[in-house]
Amino acid sequence: MARGIVTLTTDFGSSDAFVGAMKGVILAVNPEVELVDISHDIRPYDVMEAAYVVAQAYRYFPPRTIHLVVVDPGVGTARRPLLVSADRYMFVAPDNGVLSVVYSREESLFVRHITASHYFLEPVSNTFHGRDLFAPIAGWLSRQVETDKFGELITDYTKFALPLPKRVNEKLVKAIVLRVDRFGTLMTNLTPADLPELFREKPAEFKMTVGKGEVTQWKTAYADGAQGEPFAILGSSGYIEIAVNKGSASQALGVGRGVEVSIVLP
Amino acid sequence: MARGIVTLTTDFGSSDAFVGAMKGVILAVNPEVELVDISHDIRPYDVMEAAYVVAQAYRYFPPRTIHLVVVDPGVGTARRPLLVSADRYMFVAPDNGVLSVVYSREESLFVRHITASHYFLEPVSNTFHGRDLFAPIAGWLSRQVETDKFGELITDYTKFALPLPKRVNEKLVKAIVLRVDRFGTLMTNLTPADLPELFREKPAEFKMTVGKGEVTQWKTAYADGAQGEPFAILGSSGYIEIAVNKGSASQALGVGRGVEVSIVLP
Amino acid sequence: MARGIVTLTTDFGSSDAFVGAMKGVILAVNPEVELVDISHDIRPYDVMEAAYVVAQAYRYFPPRTIHLVVVDPGVGTARRPLLVSADRYMFVAPDNGVLSVVYSREESLFVRHITASHYFLEPVSNTFHGRDLFAPIAGWLSRQVETDKFGELITDYTKFALPLPKRVNEKLVKAIVLRVDRFGTLMTNLTPADLPELFREKPAEFKMTVGKGEVTQWKTAYADGAQGEPFAILGSSGYIEIAVNKGSASQALGVGRGVEVSIVLP
Repeated sequence: MARGIVTLTTDFGSSDAFVGAMKGVILAVNPEVELVDISHDIRPYDVMEAAYVVAQAYRYFPPRTIHLVVVDPGVGTARRPLLVSADRYMFVAPDNGVLSVVYSREESLFVRHITASHYFLEPVSNTFHGRDLFAPIAGWLSRQVETDKFGELITDYTKFALPLPKRVNEKLVKAIVLRVDRFGTLMTNLTPADLPELFREKPAEFKMTVGKGEVTQWKTAYADGAQGEPFAILGSSGYIEIAVNKGSASQALGVGRGVEVSIVLP
Repeated sequence: MARGIVTLTTDFGSSDAFVGAMKGVILAVNPEVELVDISHDIRPYDVMEAAYVVAQAYRYFPPRTIHLVVVDPGVGTARRPLLVSADRYMFVAPDNGVLSVVYSREESLFVRHITASHYFLEPVSNTFHGRDLFAPIAGWLSRQVETDKFGELITDYTKFALPLPKRVNEKLVKAIVLRVDRFGTLMTNLTPADLPELFREKPAEFKMTVGKGEVTQWKTAYADGAQGEPFAILGSSGYIEIAVNKGSASQALGVGRGVEVSIVLP
Repeated sequence: MARGIVTLTTDFGSSDAFVGAMKGVILAVNPEVELVDISHDIRPYDVMEAAYVVAQAYRYFPPRTIHLVVVDPGVGTARRPLLVSADRYMFVAPDNGVLSVVYSREESLFVRHITASHYFLEPVSNTFHGRDLFAPIAGWLSRQVETDKFGELITDYTKFALPLPKRVNEKLVKAIVLRVDRFGTLMTNLTPADLPELFREKPAEFKMTVGKGEVTQWKTAYADGAQGEPFAILGSSGYIEIAVNKGSASQALGVGRGVEVSIVLP
């Protein structure tokens, strides 16, 4: 893979020139690089949303892909710029927890504090390190500059505790909604390991309470849901979702991100 | 064209990782491929909107371009995944009518039911065939795998009847608004062939009724319209449009997609 | 840079096929070209917004990059299509002032009226020159066709006077808000040269009046702002901004683009 692949995830939106400027900088360093957008519509300043969005995409790219993640409300302060090497991928991001989900999934991690300022775009502004610092680092990485050229290894990087479901007792599990996607589907923090009762050959009945709504149906395809009726389903991200066939579970249940989900088992 | 071009049209929006994951999968199969977005802002589940949007772009790409179209409310059900070969292009899409406009325009069509599961991304989820099935197929196609390797030819694929204008009598034509574009311009289903009176050397006068509004002006450039006054014009998609100079016909007339348009001729 | 880079800035949005069709046309001319979006969410018909957005990105790209800018309310009228060569970049755009900021920044400018219609996509529609005229010109330029092949040099191209701050007297400067970005940050037309008092070793105190609000704080990083309190900061575009830490200055102050900013100095 001579040309290198850099993905971009930011909260810069699509109406400004922020993303274009970053891409220009990367291409100025490596005109052959392939640039791929993951999302630029992360909610402004929402580090945790970016953490989950990146986590849903990064492992599908070819090995050696460089994932650039710039949700950076602390730009210009002492927060450190990081270069993270995992088994198959590299990440360039501010040290603000935006890679927390990556950290939780990757076994082998080398985290460096980027200090090699001769790679930066001079003069480095205090307000747009995406363009002046992170983009050129990604560009040079894509040209195969070795990671130890960029800074020293650190171990005290910022890592958020991810919200995990709690099994209150044999019959009750408490979870939350991590994200609402474009379709209004609620992505919970429940995985099959948290609710093995639902994945047995003969799955248990259950009652999920979400906001003022109740969900008792399990489906294996979105289209199997009755009109307007929310159901639970195993989503493509590995988390259990609450969805509505050709509709929005978020609207149907009147709930959004962060809301509690209670699962009662027999 | 060694590297191959794959376009993407989906209803996945831009705030989730869906499109990024699909692109990662395609690049993992063919790191040299060129990826081009047509639109990811198709209204959720809106198969017919996708059908018209793809139709407005696909013929402008180089021959052998692969058009990947994933608006797929039936994901995980028995609806078939298709590989469609037309004269100059290939299409990968679910068998739900999303290629109906393509079918109506292409004379030579070979439609295959994709069954070669060894090309899929394992494990195939039940909720995201865009990533697990359609993307890898597009990737392998872009590497010149022959189409007959992916599945058998079928002829009973889903094809929607497209709404066509009706000439009620010599003086009256009934049409509809197919789409409203970003500018609020109304794209009708009328082509010059439906209203030859307007394309004669000395065009006929006409009165279009759209909602509660009336349109009697024909213009040849958007900027020729008077402020706030809707007019008819031949749009770049080949359909007659109703537009407002530097404004929104949809707002000016208070109408949207699906609304009836009556054209009265002298 | 054999393959060539073309950037695109338009008001075509992301829900229609306009941008996809343009990219198809460019790739049909030069399948090896690299296409980079700057923004397609320029407000419909807003030539000046496009002028500023392009200005914030174009200089970060590698030399010889071709910047295609299509905000073109006058499509189909006598307004001329232009090919502009600056020292390091080329621009393809309608002659409607959309390159005014580029003109104000570039010293060496060769502006040509594109007339070489054999490069156009036939038939040229009257409603979408982005696809039929500007895109193929960008494609051929990326294949190194010499600029004098496209048309004659002109000097009477359209150039808007950019709104500049006025120093009313020693103590008072009047400026305006040029743009509001995705974060709600207000980009003024003030540069450090307009307010040297704020950039001295010991900066002067100041009072900015914006709408009904007042700003008296200067910060060097967004995160240094107190919650909900607007402050002034030097933005990455070189203009002074009014921002709120993890918030929207536009919302906090209830103002938007075009609003006057008064700066009172001691």
